[in-house]
Amino acid sequence: MKPLGPIPPHFHSQGADLLIAGRPARDWAQAHGTPLFVYEAGAVRARVAQLRAALPARVRLHYAVKANPFGPLLALLAELVDGFDIASAGELALLKARGIDPARAGFAGPGKRDAEIAAALAAGVTLHCESAREVERALALGAAAGHRPKLAIRVNPDFDLRGSGMKMGGGARPFGVDAENVPPLARRIVASGADWRGLHIYAGSQALDAQAVIATQAATLDLAARLAGEAGVPLPALNLGGGFGIPYFPGDTPLDLAAVGSALAARLADLPPVLHDTQLTVELGRYLVGEAGVYLAQVVERKESRGEVFLVTDGGLHHQLAASGNFGTVVRRNYPLAIATRMDVPATEIASVVGCLCTPLDRLADKAALPRGQEGDLVAVFCAGAYGATASPAAFLGHGPASEILAETPVDRAG
Amino acid sequence: MKPLGPIPPHFHSQGADLLIAGRPARDWAQAHGTPLFVYEAGAVRARVAQLRAALPARVRLHYAVKANPFGPLLALLAELVDGFDIASAGELALLKARGIDPARAGFAGPGKRDAEIAAALAAGVTLHCESAREVERALALGAAAGHRPKLAIRVNPDFDLRGSGMKMGGGARPFGVDAENVPPLARRIVASGADWRGLHIYAGSQALDAQAVIATQAATLDLAARLAGEAGVPLPALNLGGGFGIPYFPGDTPLDLAAVGSALAARLADLPPVLHDTQLTVELGRYLVGEAGVYLAQVVERKESRGEVFLVTDGGLHHQLAASGNFGTVVRRNYPLAIATRMDVPATEIASVVGCLCTPLDRLADKAALPRGQEGDLVAVFCAGAYGATASPAAFLGHGPASEILAETPVDRAG
Repeated sequence: MKPLGPIPPHFHSQGADLLIAGRPARDWAQAHGTPLFVYEAGAVRARVAQLRAALPARVRLHYAVKANPFGPLLALLAELVDGFDIASAGELALLKARGIDPARAGFAGPGKRDAEIAAALAAGVTLHCESAREVERALALGAAAGHRPKLAIRVNPDFDLRGSGMKMGGGARPFGVDAENVPPLARRIVASGADWRGLHIYAGSQALDAQAVIATQAATLDLAARLAGEAGVPLPALNLGGGFGIPYFPGDTPLDLAAVGSALAARLADLPPVLHDTQLTVELGRYLVGEAGVYLAQVVERKESRGEVFLVTDGGLHHQLAASGNFGTVVRRNYPLAIATRMDVPATEIASVVGCLCTPLDRLADKAALPRGQEGDLVAVFCAGAYGATASPAAFLGHGPASEILAETPVDRAG
Repeated sequence: MKPLGPIPPHFHSQGADLLIAGRPARDWAQAHGTPLFVYEAGAVRARVAQLRAALPARVRLHYAVKANPFGPLLALLAELVDGFDIASAGELALLKARGIDPARAGFAGPGKRDAEIAAALAAGVTLHCESAREVERALALGAAAGHRPKLAIRVNPDFDLRGSGMKMGGGARPFGVDAENVPPLARRIVASGADWRGLHIYAGSQALDAQAVIATQAATLDLAARLAGEAGVPLPALNLGGGFGIPYFPGDTPLDLAAVGSALAARLADLPPVLHDTQLTVELGRYLVGEAGVYLAQVVERKESRGEVFLVTDGGLHHQLAASGNFGTVVRRNYPLAIATRMDVPATEIASVVGCLCTPLDRLADKAALPRGQEGDLVAVFCAGAYGATASPAAFLGHGPASEILAETPVDRAG
């Protein structure tokens, strides 16, 4: 038996039914078919409220579109957060399609093409330049188009986020400008007459250890102050990165957000003068939407093979690559998962939940303790709100993409 | 320094230029943009010719659509192979869209929905049933629609393909009917009046060791004969599976196809009576198209960070997940890769080739010995013809899918 990850605590059930946004999972499946991603609008609002309560008021919140670019979710977040971070001209187009002002967005990414830079500058996006060469390309493209480019420097710090699921800084990296090369480049931008927008320092992602996040934020503020001081330029804005993790796996515990917030408040009370007027932003993707999402798949067949039970579903790794253990993980562990139509029954057997793809990689739960599942039951994979639908090979084997919905909790049933 | 995989030997260069289907890579990139998959029609034809020469004439060739469902490639293969294997109703629709007769196709896959089974039966596809339950569903759906279903049994053998990159048989599996349960199910199908189409035994994939393939084919023939004998039914057809691998990584050597063919010929000369009239099929995907494909991406920037060189391209893991080491591999190794516009220059530096995605996972070559690459150069990732475009998260970060073309070698330049 292999344990399952922890189900996010805001999910409840009613009799046999898992409730999603106040309605039984089977209702969503009947209305929209399976496989289906359901994103709870209420959970996103609650998470933003937690962040606003915990973090100093001065800190702005950005949403990293890459985590989940589903249009209705972007529209919801536009009402809740202060800005967006995008990683491509495609993501810029998604913001525009939802009527979101691109001037609220920053654009980071190591391989920006000329056409992408030009589109971003024309739309008023702040370009987070990843290299001196990119600064020159942006200045030239801005001059050619008659725009005054909004330019920040993405910094490759000389530290990383301890315990991070994904290290983005420290050592040699394709991301950002090595910290030691930032001061002359900052002066170059200021001297060029561009709209200097400061620094972006992203050291890592998916950390559950508050002390690691606190240490990284402190190091980020120190580094930013030092670089601005060395450059002799003001620092209008600083993107502190993100890195707030969510619990996916057995034994994971939630990030202590209150601890992060109070440490940051203490630090902000004692900033060096160069940071006094700096606009500070925390950039979050997964932390805002990851736990709000559930992926529902239907059991097509219950199968027994040589003493093992398989629940074969109509979903799979083509929608949930990370949950299958095939994206950025070395050792496969089980995501949180439940039989959404058997919530009132205890686990009585060991079963593996697999997808409909003809590959042994397609496994949503491996040897998990579950209630006895049958044809027609629904399986819920939790923590499916981020890096799910768009971070999976949707065209693989021709089953096509899953449906997605943003679900509002009915007012009369909201708790 | 980490070595690169072996470039397939049919690729050549002309001066600085890698030739693809007889034309410089930069011509393809100019005509179709980057990132771009180019599939050489000639290489596919040559591979099929090698197979026809090496395998006994009695053995039919099928193409497994999942390896690469690009429409023009399907149309080409329709002229070259004897049939197709599909894994979803989506793949069935792709065959129909190219005017390929679905009666030439078999449909295997562990999670077939009722709608998929009905569509397949209506189109005359042979259903490779993965369980007794699926047989009953197919019989009921066929009866309801007034079709006589063409049914085969996919067998979960009691052995696997030694040295296989992906084991599909042996032990408990979600795929196929455990061998020991096949005889009564075969009798059930025959008794039902359905069109009994025999067995499908797929033990594994991506094997480079001819002796392993030979042993598996022998075991497959033995098992099929034994099961048919025990069932007391004729065996009209047997899909022997595939498993022929291609060299991806440093040290990999090509499968000895001649050895496989001669061993199979010897075995066919000495078959038990129950297999005398059996239609035998080998099902190949990757082996037919993998080495025919090249993925071209353009260097957006040459970047140095703390002593390391990065060639940042406009491509990445959103098109080439397996090459990035993030799909079904535990230890990342380098695919074959070259700077397609510097073929006349020796390797003079160690560089990593990365994609444009903002994640450290997005690496196409890690610390490889390469000629000095510059902005505007083209990078070629080889062995990109199978499990590339559709087996990657094309929507991730909003850059969109790559272009794909099937390239014919101009007659006047063909060697």
